[in-house]
Formats: sequence, structure tokens, C-alpha cells
Amino acid sequence: MVKVNDDYLKLKAGYLFPEIAKRVKNYTQNNISKDIIKLGIGDVTEPLPRVCIDAMNKALNEMGTHQGFRGYGPEQGYSWLREKICEHEFVSRGCKISPDEIFVSDGSKCDSSNILDILGNDNLIAVTDPVYPVYVDSNVMTGRTGESLKDGTYKGLVYLPINEKNNFLPEIPLKKVDILYLCFPNNPTGATIGRKELQKWVDYANKNQSLILFDAAYEAFIQDKDIPHSIYEIEGAKDCAIEFRSFSKNAGFTGIRCAYTVVPRNLKGFNSNNVEVDLWSLWNRRQSTKFNGVNYIVQRGAEAVFSTEGKKEVKGLIDFYMENAKIMKNKLQSAGLTVYGGDNAPYIWIKVPDQMTSWNFFDYLLEKAKVVGTPGSGFGVAGEGYFRLSAFNSRSNVIDAMERIIKI
Amino acid sequence: MVKVNDDYLKLKAGYLFPEIAKRVKNYTQNNISKDIIKLGIGDVTEPLPRVCIDAMNKALNEMGTHQGFRGYGPEQGYSWLREKICEHEFVSRGCKISPDEIFVSDGSKCDSSNILDILGNDNLIAVTDPVYPVYVDSNVMTGRTGESLKDGTYKGLVYLPINEKNNFLPEIPLKKVDILYLCFPNNPTGATIGRKELQKWVDYANKNQSLILFDAAYEAFIQDKDIPHSIYEIEGAKDCAIEFRSFSKNAGFTGIRCAYTVVPRNLKGFNSNNVEVDLWSLWNRRQSTKFNGVNYIVQRGAEAVFSTEGKKEVKGLIDFYMENAKIMKNKLQSAGLTVYGGDNAPYIWIKVPDQMTSWNFFDYLLEKAKVVGTPGSGFGVAGEGYFRLSAFNSRSNVIDAMERIIKI
Repeated sequence: MVKVNDDYLKLKAGYLFPEIAKRVKNYTQNNISKDIIKLGIGDVTEPLPRVCIDAMNKALNEMGTHQGFRGYGPEQGYSWLREKICEHEFVSRGCKISPDEIFVSDGSKCDSSNILDILGNDNLIAVTDPVYPVYVDSNVMTGRTGESLKDGTYKGLVYLPINEKNNFLPEIPLKKVDILYLCFPNNPTGATIGRKELQKWVDYANKNQSLILFDAAYEAFIQDKDIPHSIYEIEGAKDCAIEFRSFSKNAGFTGIRCAYTVVPRNLKGFNSNNVEVDLWSLWNRRQSTKFNGVNYIVQRGAEAVFSTEGKKEVKGLIDFYMENAKIMKNKLQSAGLTVYGGDNAPYIWIKVPDQMTSWNFFDYLLEKAKVVGTPGSGFGVAGEGYFRLSAFNSRSNVIDAMERIIKI
Repeated sequence: MVKVNDDYLKLKAGYLFPEIAKRVKNYTQNNISKDIIKLGIGDVTEPLPRVCIDAMNKALNEMGTHQGFRGYGPEQGYSWLREKICEHEFVSRGCKISPDEIFVSDGSKCDSSNILDILGNDNLIAVTDPVYPVYVDSNVMTGRTGESLKDGTYKGLVYLPINEKNNFLPEIPLKKVDILYLCFPNNPTGATIGRKELQKWVDYANKNQSLILFDAAYEAFIQDKDIPHSIYEIEGAKDCAIEFRSFSKNAGFTGIRCAYTVVPRNLKGFNSNNVEVDLWSLWNRRQSTKFNGVNYIVQRGAEAVFSTEGKKEVKGLIDFYMENAKIMKNKLQSAGLTVYGGDNAPYIWIKVPDQMTSWNFFDYLLEKAKVVGTPGSGFGVAGEGYFRLSAFNSRSNVIDAMERIIKI
């Protein structure tokens, strides 16, 4: 008799974004006016950079010839891409990362959940609250938590609240945790972390032999020069951190699928006999066995991001979305709303007015302004009372959405 | 202190193909003559179909425009692709599969190992021996086996030998197993399974409430009209089987990455209280949470496979590789070797001569003929004494390789 993984049955509701899609669908079915503006899901809207299209076009044509055809590539990614990533994203920032520590993949969502494959089930795990739901759900699904509690949290996880009081920076936990997820620039709050503050976490992790899973998916949006783009800019991070990066939000690859994960060679975990085991070998084995590499054409597109022209085009995209964020922040503030984020991240984190819940505010904005955002409570208990708007949309939609919100 | 997943430490050697690559690299470093012909890994060599290139080119150009740009797609795949797959691969063969039972992914290697995510750890699992190593390794990595034994098998798995005596068809196990992997046309032996024989397995599974994980990655190579292409051609299979399919071997997508998995709606597993749980919902949740869908351009390329022109081109590719297989089989037989497979599959399964081991024969062929194949023992204990050659190569390389082998 085939048994299912019972841990899946602990999961509370559906994943956040399908729930939003459902509510929007219901609304559009019951209403004639359908000009809804979506500022919910963090999905880019601008076309792919021309330089990526050209590189991918060239690669596609190669695939149509005997000489240029490529079958299975290395599971870890082609060396020419790993070298480019290494040089432009790490070495140029003084991080001592080598190309073979970079594993190219089809997405950070996959990587940040698959990483649990190589880690023991008996680790104490900390997440911020609010948090990107995938971190929590992937832990629930792999049996790393207990049942869900009435307040919506899961037993066994350590929640580190981030809110106005702590300036959206989690406090070092009193308990010794084994694994902790940090995401900066933060999804969903748009908050950032400075060098000094991040150094505290690295020191904490090294002192306690903990592992930091650092999600830097939004690093390209950083405007302030003092904010680190990579955790490896911090002394000691190579001994305690894995970093997730993506081409989704900088070059607009959400529909193209390319990301990468950095696992330093000297990073260690412990087996059940407390003997050191290097995590690089485990991840390498995981990827070789359970993954078959990223599309060759896509990797050529990703490589083009690091050309002079590619960097210029990516900067253009980032500037465009950050100008959206600026407009949004100004307009919302002028409407009397309290807002956070939006300075070094494409997310605006709104304090929900008038004692509404996050989902109340969602329905209110949908009905009154036909604007879709994301309820803060969807990101965790401590997200209740907040609301996320994303800066990913056309300029006219952004302006239109802000005018509609101001009016109500 | 971060703990690793101890189960990874049970894994014996590196994954088979990296070991082969290492030996080939060593050989080429120590030898001047480097014209090695690789018939080892099952990787296609012919260019992508023109119709796929054209469709992908169109989609790529769309991605460069505001109107045509697509970000995140559905995690399950675009409906237009799922509908085409359903119609051409299933409905046309009388299988009652619906589009929403088809989950598009980036590879069968991923799917066939990720499927374990939704299944309990206390299932008794059966694999054939020899077998595609990913089935075994992914079970080891997720703690579904005990330690490895001296003979190379893992404690806790049920091995069903396939060999000359049983015509490479596993016998129904005496023990009641919960999950069983079947791969037909078979990798590595090239054997096929007829309707009557497959019906026995479906009946066994339904009687015992077991789950069949059916890998049909090589179905496009079937020449004999009586051999089923899908397990869903068999009465009752929708109640007991998940099927894995891929565009890798028919349309040559090994470097493009597109596959799909069929999870019927009425397929059930049991939770620890013996209550039925539908597997479709669990897999849907798994894919929504831990996966972000397949590249839009790739899905357009896959869709083109089902056009009239696409089918013609794929048939051309299959015919080409099957002609290779025919040449190989004839030549090897004329050289006095006993060979199996190659009639409905791109793999030739050679009985290793003169009491050599599989790895002896690997080294022998590499040194004497500069031909690379895959040692049967790499696929399991019962693969010892056999050797796999793949028909994926150019005609001239295939002819050349056969002449070299005949000479020694």
C-alpha cells in the first residue's frame, strides 16, 4: 500500500499566490470592468534585454546545426557562465569565490527549497516573520516542523519578527539555531541590511557552527553604496553561508529560468557522529543526481548579462523599476499612508490603515481601486497589518494605480 | 551546529557517468591519439528539428517586446502545451488522460527523483536490476534504504533481476511492494514490455494498492505496433501509475530541457492513518512550491513537436538513430557477440565476452578500439557481465566504431 508523505498534510492553505489568483479570478467573473492593475506577484514586465535576445538567438541557431548542437551540459552549468558570474558578481566586489563554487540552476525557488535535501532533519531552523513563504513551506513539506498552530505558525520553527520597531532587521535569536534564512534586500518588506549588522549574523553563525541561507535575489536593486550585495563581502561568510542568486529580477528572466547558488568549498556541516562533512560535495552530488543542468541557450543569454551592453541594459531595467518604486512611495505617502521599502528594493511595504486586516485591505483595494497587491499576512503572522506592492509594471499602470488608490 | 543529511553518506561511488568521464579524461591525457567515439551516455547528437528552432525563434522575439513578453508561467506548464501533449500522446492512443493531469517540467531525471518528495519514507520499494541509477540513488539520498551491502546493493530495496533467462522482463515480486519503478523501452537493456505482461503489473499494483512509477522516456523508439507507448493504454493503470515522459530523446531536447509527468486525478496514496489522499494534489503543491515552471520559449519549441512538420522531423530523427542501432546490432552479431535490445530502443545490450567484467570490457574497448560505452555493472549488480552501447551518434561514427570493435 503506497504511503504518502504525511508532512504535506500539515501545510495550511494553498500557496499564497494561487490564492490571490483565485480571488482576482472570482472578482473578474463577477464584475464587468476588468482593467485590474496587478502589483501583487513580484514578476517583471519589461522585455528581455536586447543583448540577451541576440545571444540566445545565436545559441538557438547553433542548436540547429551539427557542429553547434549541444546535448546534456554540465549539471553545474557551463564553465564559461560560472566564470563570468564569479568575476562580475563576486571577485569584482572583493569576494573570494571561485567558479566551481557556483552552481547554475533553473531558479532560486528550486534551489532554496532543494537545499534542504542535503541537510539533516534534526536542525533547528529560524526564519524571519514575515518571510518568503517557500522557505517555510519547503521545511514543512520535508518534516522539519511540527503541526501548524492556531496563530498560523508551525511548531518547531524559530520565528524572528521583523517590524517597524526593529527597523525590519531581525534580532539575533536567544536560542542557538542551526540554520537561518536571511533575505536582503528583503522580500516582502523591501528592507536592507548594512555591513555591520550582517557581520553580527556571520559572527553568530560561525560561533554556533550554524548555516546561513542567504537569499540575494534582489541585490541588483541596491542603490546605496554601503549596502552589501553579497554575504561574501562580509568577513567569515565563506565559513557559514550559502547564497542564492538569480537572473529573474535583474535581467527579467522570470519566464526564462536561470539562477545560481554559491556553496563555498570550505563550508562544513556535521554528520550524526559530529564528524565534519563538506556541503559542496553533497550539493554537487545532489545536482548531478537529481538535476540535468540548464538549457544551453538560456546560459548564453545569462552570459550576455555580463557584457558591457548587458550591464547597461540591466541598469536601465533596474532604474526603470526603481523610478516606479519612487513614484509609488511618494504618492502613497502623500495619501497619508505609512510606507517602507522601495529605496533599495522593488517592494513597497504599506502599513494597512484603519485596523483593517491584510486580506481586508486586499479585497478593499481590489474592489475600490482595481489594484492587486499582496496581503502581508500571506508572508507570516507578523506580516498581518501590512501589505506589499511591487514596482514591477509599466509606468502608466503604476501612475494609474497610484491615482486610483489616492482617490479612495 | 548544522547537521547534514546522513543518507547521502550511504551513497557508494560517484554517479556512473562522471566516473566514465573521468576514465576517458585519464585516457586522453595519457594518449596521443584522441579520436575516441562516445557511445556511452544516452545523449542525442543530431541538430534540433527545424520546426522547433522556428517556434523557439518566434517565442524568443516575442520576449523582446512589451506585448509578447512573458514572465512567470504556470508551474504546471502552459495549457496550450498540456493540451497538445494530451491529445497527441494520450487521447490519440485511447488513454483517458486530461490536460490537467500533465505536469510540464525541465526533465525526467528531476521528476523521477522529485516524485519521492510526496511519498512516505516507509514504503517498500522495488527496482529492476540493472536499472537507471537515478531511481536507486534518489531513494538512498532520501533515506528510503539502509546501508549499501558488499555486493553493491542497498539494504531495504527489493531488486527484481532482469536478464537473459527472463527475457529482461522482471518477475512479479513474491513480497508485496508499495512502489515499483518500471522503465520500458528499458534503459539500459533496450528490452520492451508487451500489453499482456504490463497488464499483469497493473493488476498486481491495483490488487496491492501499490504505485507504479513508469518511465516511458524512450517510447518514441518503439517500432513494433503491439508494444504500448504509455502505461495508460493498459486497463486500470490510471488507478496505480504515474508516467514520466520527455522531449529529450524524441525531439533531441537533452540540452533544451523539457519533460512531463502524468499524475492521474484519481490516483490515491494513504496517510499514516490509512486514509486515502490524492497524489495529484500533493504533486501540484510540490510543483507550485518548489518549482517555477519551464521556460516559455522551450514550451513553444515543445509544442511544435506536435505539428505535422514536427512529427515528420521527429520520425526522421528516430529512424536515423534506429538505423544506427540496426547497423550496430548486425555488426556486433557478425563479430560473434551476443547482443540484446536495439529493435525498439536506442540501446544495445552486449553480453561481455570471455569472462571479463563490465569495467574490464569498458577499459578494453577504450584502449583497443577507442570506443566508449557504459559498463552494465554501473546499472546494478545484475548488470555485471553486460555492456551498453547507445545508438546516439553520427552514421560515420557508428560505422567507424563498429569496424574498430570488429577488428579487435
